[in-house]
Amino acid sequence: MLAIGIIGASGYTGFELVKIALKHKHISKIKLYGHSSSGQSYSKLYPELSGFNCIIEAIEYIDFTLDVYFLALPHTKSIEIVEKLVKSYKCIIDLSADFRLNSKDLYDLVYHQNHTASELLTTKVYGLSEFVSSDKFKCASVIANPGCFPTVTLLSLLPLVKNFSNKINSISTVAYSGVSGAGKTSTADLSYSEMFGNTKAYSVLTHRHQPEIEQELQNNFPYSITMHLLPVKRGIYATHTIFLNEAIEYEKLNEVYQSTYKEKAFVRMREMPPELNWVIQTNYCDINFQVKGKNIVITSCIDNLIKGASGQAIQNMNLNFGFNETEGLI
Amino acid sequence: MLAIGIIGASGYTGFELVKIALKHKHISKIKLYGHSSSGQSYSKLYPELSGFNCIIEAIEYIDFTLDVYFLALPHTKSIEIVEKLVKSYKCIIDLSADFRLNSKDLYDLVYHQNHTASELLTTKVYGLSEFVSSDKFKCASVIANPGCFPTVTLLSLLPLVKNFSNKINSISTVAYSGVSGAGKTSTADLSYSEMFGNTKAYSVLTHRHQPEIEQELQNNFPYSITMHLLPVKRGIYATHTIFLNEAIEYEKLNEVYQSTYKEKAFVRMREMPPELNWVIQTNYCDINFQVKGKNIVITSCIDNLIKGASGQAIQNMNLNFGFNETEGLI
Amino acid sequence: MLAIGIIGASGYTGFELVKIALKHKHISKIKLYGHSSSGQSYSKLYPELSGFNCIIEAIEYIDFTLDVYFLALPHTKSIEIVEKLVKSYKCIIDLSADFRLNSKDLYDLVYHQNHTASELLTTKVYGLSEFVSSDKFKCASVIANPGCFPTVTLLSLLPLVKNFSNKINSISTVAYSGVSGAGKTSTADLSYSEMFGNTKAYSVLTHRHQPEIEQELQNNFPYSITMHLLPVKRGIYATHTIFLNEAIEYEKLNEVYQSTYKEKAFVRMREMPPELNWVIQTNYCDINFQVKGKNIVITSCIDNLIKGASGQAIQNMNLNFGFNETEGLI
Amino acid sequence: MLAIGIIGASGYTGFELVKIALKHKHISKIKLYGHSSSGQSYSKLYPELSGFNCIIEAIEYIDFTLDVYFLALPHTKSIEIVEKLVKSYKCIIDLSADFRLNSKDLYDLVYHQNHTASELLTTKVYGLSEFVSSDKFKCASVIANPGCFPTVTLLSLLPLVKNFSNKINSISTVAYSGVSGAGKTSTADLSYSEMFGNTKAYSVLTHRHQPEIEQELQNNFPYSITMHLLPVKRGIYATHTIFLNEAIEYEKLNEVYQSTYKEKAFVRMREMPPELNWVIQTNYCDINFQVKGKNIVITSCIDNLIKGASGQAIQNMNLNFGFNETEGLI
Repeated sequence: MLAIGIIGASGYTGFELVKIALKHKHISKIKLYGHSSSGQSYSKLYPELSGFNCIIEAIEYIDFTLDVYFLALPHTKSIEIVEKLVKSYKCIIDLSADFRLNSKDLYDLVYHQNHTASELLTTKVYGLSEFVSSDKFKCASVIANPGCFPTVTLLSLLPLVKNFSNKINSISTVAYSGVSGAGKTSTADLSYSEMFGNTKAYSVLTHRHQPEIEQELQNNFPYSITMHLLPVKRGIYATHTIFLNEAIEYEKLNEVYQSTYKEKAFVRMREMPPELNWVIQTNYCDINFQVKGKNIVITSCIDNLIKGASGQAIQNMNLNFGFNETEGLI
Repeated sequence: MLAIGIIGASGYTGFELVKIALKHKHISKIKLYGHSSSGQSYSKLYPELSGFNCIIEAIEYIDFTLDVYFLALPHTKSIEIVEKLVKSYKCIIDLSADFRLNSKDLYDLVYHQNHTASELLTTKVYGLSEFVSSDKFKCASVIANPGCFPTVTLLSLLPLVKNFSNKINSISTVAYSGVSGAGKTSTADLSYSEMFGNTKAYSVLTHRHQPEIEQELQNNFPYSITMHLLPVKRGIYATHTIFLNEAIEYEKLNEVYQSTYKEKAFVRMREMPPELNWVIQTNYCDINFQVKGKNIVITSCIDNLIKGASGQAIQNMNLNFGFNETEGLI
Repeated sequence: MLAIGIIGASGYTGFELVKIALKHKHISKIKLYGHSSSGQSYSKLYPELSGFNCIIEAIEYIDFTLDVYFLALPHTKSIEIVEKLVKSYKCIIDLSADFRLNSKDLYDLVYHQNHTASELLTTKVYGLSEFVSSDKFKCASVIANPGCFPTVTLLSLLPLVKNFSNKINSISTVAYSGVSGAGKTSTADLSYSEMFGNTKAYSVLTHRHQPEIEQELQNNFPYSITMHLLPVKRGIYATHTIFLNEAIEYEKLNEVYQSTYKEKAFVRMREMPPELNWVIQTNYCDINFQVKGKNIVITSCIDNLIKGASGQAIQNMNLNFGFNETEGLI
Repeated sequence: MLAIGIIGASGYTGFELVKIALKHKHISKIKLYGHSSSGQSYSKLYPELSGFNCIIEAIEYIDFTLDVYFLALPHTKSIEIVEKLVKSYKCIIDLSADFRLNSKDLYDLVYHQNHTASELLTTKVYGLSEFVSSDKFKCASVIANPGCFPTVTLLSLLPLVKNFSNKINSISTVAYSGVSGAGKTSTADLSYSEMFGNTKAYSVLTHRHQPEIEQELQNNFPYSITMHLLPVKRGIYATHTIFLNEAIEYEKLNEVYQSTYKEKAFVRMREMPPELNWVIQTNYCDINFQVKGKNIVITSCIDNLIKGASGQAIQNMNLNFGFNETEGLI
């Protein structure tokens, strides 16, 4: 049985981690840490969990004897804590962006920071669960949990790109995310009155998830992704338009996707474009592709807080400890 | 032609006032004032109005030569400004709660303030447009624009209460308001993520609109109102349950409502419970009543930002200057 | 281990039953029945459950050897089937309104039907789980699962009414329900375009849940309930305004509610008015009351598809078989 | 002063036409026609317009003496009526897709019909208001009002494509439309319960607006558009990803867009990606472009029922009769 710590427990991904952990067979102890929320009872913060009266403790006083640490902190806030934890050889799963990129230079550029633990960038595991080989998990120092947009995009595109890279002319992704993607926040432009009936693109051509996607895609063709706010609480819907230099037969494409995912519990290949509601409150990623001549359109979706964050983090923990991959998640 | 000033132009009621004023035949000049928003171009704040590049000026530098002043400030912030304006005998329409109550003692109690211009509480006109006699407007020092909940409630109940007071055992109102009722705000509990799919009661048994309603209702029976947030941007839906000591015939009730409102442009008596969408973006109040034995249920709705605030303010201006009541509003 | 049949599996309550049953420790076999949906694969109807490829069978061919039958049919469609099932002494849980009322005359009047199995109206158990004595379950012929509005209303009012009936002058309930309360339907007035940003009262003074509530309340004071559509998918929020003839001390009221529910897993007394989202996707009913002089306001909420239908049905099954009350529900 | 007929008045575009027509200075008479809705009072169908008691007449009895006819009928239903009307040399504005394509063969293929008035396909004017030369309007036999997706897409792309066609490698559009785009309908998959919190792609690689767009774009590069449902009532948000063979300077691009639209009342070039709410209930199309190397992203939005349908129809009428382009629309 594992004792886990959730560092940054007060946000939405922290809340999802708590809910999954409470149902998880192999977790017997949960400790919560936070900055401004420290000292508060969790059931006061989230009255949904009225029976869970755990008190959030100050991050300064982390118990270093736990088995697994989930860091659900804002970007750039994980580095220092990970540096301390890594020394005790515990399982560390970082949900921030701090260890996703492989290159310190790229990280410093994209996040306007000086990464002080850059050696971990090369030893970490990029935890896109379906694409990590099982032996890698065992020796992981830090598991960098992928971003929400990279998760849905890479699961959709990797089988295509890995197998038909030379036939691809260009790929563009247009993704719409529920507002919870911005965290538990109080900015005026994300108020209910402002977002009701509304949508908008943001960070056009400058979103930080694009370098992360391109790092994993290793694309030798132009790639572009544009993010939007969807006027719902949760879920990401992504549409990938692929132009080919040379047509690919539907059957060949299908074979590649089927063989990639047939043993994977959380990717469901669909015969029709999926609906967002099919994956809400689940760890699934649903994917469909349509082909017409040299044009392929792939549509896919996840729950940003689960497969795009906390669910995949638990999936990574399960894989790392050799538990059933779906434990706590179905 | 009138020159108007909108003091507190940056909020939602300010925005509605600007939109109506821009279409109003008898308004030739609009000046905008604000605190934190001063110095900004209005079209930057509200890109919807891309052609209206008016700069918001500081409240400290109000031009005292205008004809009409609309105060769209938070409660307790209007008093000092009204005191200055009232000396120049201009038309002042205050959309805050500062002049709605008749009694200084009650105001001080309810708003936790010391009202420093209490003589105006007795000389002001309570601007529930449909119930102000035309001669009252002409000599008004200050027109206190009613609250949004009082507007929809009083229009629904006054005909009944004025005519059948002695038959009423009790009345309770349950009202649901769109989130814009809280203003253009950025508190976490009104964020899109928190309010999506949500609703809740608030200020139960302590809402400040109850004393305002009871002042106008002059009820000699128990009255109670409970407010809720409706997960939409705008609109108030109110349900009034009346228990009678003695039945009232449907026809008699109907006669009273029809005769009260038949000449009123903005109250529409309905044969079925109204839908909120019928009144959104309009200055209408739609009302229906159903009778069964000694039980009457009245349902009614308004757009909180228009009939519940800025629309009624313009309606009051129209009535005060002898313009067509519907000018700028239809 | 139980084998269960879900009759009327294609609707929203059927879907919730299936989801709970799939997680329930004591259920080993699920059979599905439907009219127009018969012959279809369930995972085609509900792609969320992609792994559950159960075929819906025709209601005409019900297997009479199962242990428990859940009827999730429209009102008036259950009677004939229950008549057949009851002969084999199985556990029958009817989610329709067909067996909720005690009086045949009242049923015939309210549902415009001739009830052909009226003897069962007197022997049935009205399955408001928290108020059924455990010995009653054991001998139940039919368990009539309460309506969604009665569930939230009775849980909120019964402690008050049972203990302080003589002090009550009147009670009115105003309830808002998510659109799923109307079932999986395709009428134009419940389309997304019509209900977006909208709300409205319906069945004012004529809703069929009022007689059901009054039957259980046994009120000797005027009672009235008014239903509305809330522009969300699921959840009911109910506000109960009580006028008293004589004040009740807060502490006494609190004592009554605390003692009624302290052993009940699914009723949570709250210190503040609950938020609808606290109970969504759960079997909880959250309740708060506020007192001011002779006026009490109780606010309460449930998920209409779970505590208001399928969750309570499973809770009733658990209680009937002596399982842990919360099995499958937490 | 004009007398107009609205054929197909009961749908959402009919309703928008009525609302605009009622405010239009040069329209003195409105006649309404419908199939299943004939005989009904318009204010019964749309209680919002309680004062407009016009009766919808049967399409069979169209008055041929009116000045302008707006056809707001489903696709394929306009042809026969237009054939009759065109003989009397009246102004005919068809909001269906029946006259948008230039080629009979393409029409027959895309709409699975035999177009019986194909000579009008070549003489009609394709009414993308901003791109019709003023002399063309005067001699128009039929004005084919563009589709909603083509309107927002062509306004966004035409300046680029007309000026830099040889530098373009490919363009893909991903568009999200409010549910009203499907008309006033009652299909189960567009019910409030199904679409709440939901989104999905539809008609992937087969949508009928793609041939319409490509006809006007005259693209010699790959083009693809994918449509989605946005969980709101109204509005279309479109994101256009352009990959270039050769970079285009921002200033040159800006010059082209500015000069194309500087005299156009209803296209607003924006410095930031627009928000959908900026254009709701208006005839505006808001457009922004961002450039990074050989990648351009254009975001744009319209109200699908106004600029994407009824507003543009009135704009076309205004231009055809030499009225102020914005009459009735601002």
